[in-house]
Amino acid sequence: MTEERPLLRPIGTVESSLREKSDAPKQGEEGGPEAWLVFHAGYEEGLRDLEVGEEILLLTWLDRAERDVLSVHPRDDARRPLRGVFSTRSADRPNPIGLHRVTVRAIEGTRLRVSDLEALHGTPILDVKPVLDRVRER
Amino acid sequence: MTEERPLLRPIGTVESSLREKSDAPKQGEEGGPEAWLVFHAGYEEGLRDLEVGEEILLLTWLDRAERDVLSVHPRDDARRPLRGVFSTRSADRPNPIGLHRVTVRAIEGTRLRVSDLEALHGTPILDVKPVLDRVRER
Repeated sequence: MTEERPLLRPIGTVESSLREKSDAPKQGEEGGPEAWLVFHAGYEEGLRDLEVGEEILLLTWLDRAERDVLSVHPRDDARRPLRGVFSTRSADRPNPIGLHRVTVRAIEGTRLRVSDLEALHGTPILDVKPVLDRVRER
Repeated sequence: MTEERPLLRPIGTVESSLREKSDAPKQGEEGGPEAWLVFHAGYEEGLRDLEVGEEILLLTWLDRAERDVLSVHPRDDARRPLRGVFSTRSADRPNPIGLHRVTVRAIEGTRLRVSDLEALHGTPILDVKPVLDRVRER
């Protein structure tokens, strides 16, 4: 059992009108804007079966998060009692991996337009997956 | 916009009866076994609001995956045509982050017993999140 610290390889970057944390809606309150997912050259083969209209899970690296935080006020609301980060969707956590369910609106080469993405401009993209098994979600 | 390669910090390890890739059921075909999530010391504060019976999203680092693969035969079935990895749930992908929806069955300190986990023994744990917004899943 290794205790290595794996190194991520960002595969692209988010281009969004959300520039600052203060621009971003609080988790669960409202949707995010449309944004571009701009993939780096070399990932075309991995992207080729994505389709317009499809819902996907986007994994990002929330590079402006705090990694040494283990409890937070949910939705950044100081009136709510502190909760352990693993029971919240806070960006602040030891491995700030963002998980976003978005819909593909357009595809232009290695650029994907998606709707409803709460991620800041410049956020590194880590992965794209199909939405979790429908059967299990019922 | 940085092009850094972020370093993950595993927060725990999976203890499972699945020892080899050949033991694991193919994605979507059947559920996985019960397993223990064994968190490293120091993460108690982050875990404290998790409850027995709750469904959670577990993020893992699939450390036995191939990172240079961009298309695969779905479910490892050579009869199925190759698909771009970002349209599959294959473990093989540039950033092999596993996303597992599991149910907490027991909590013993920093050990969580969960059901239905398709992850090999020794797999590093990266994060735990609440299940995605119910509203969006409808």
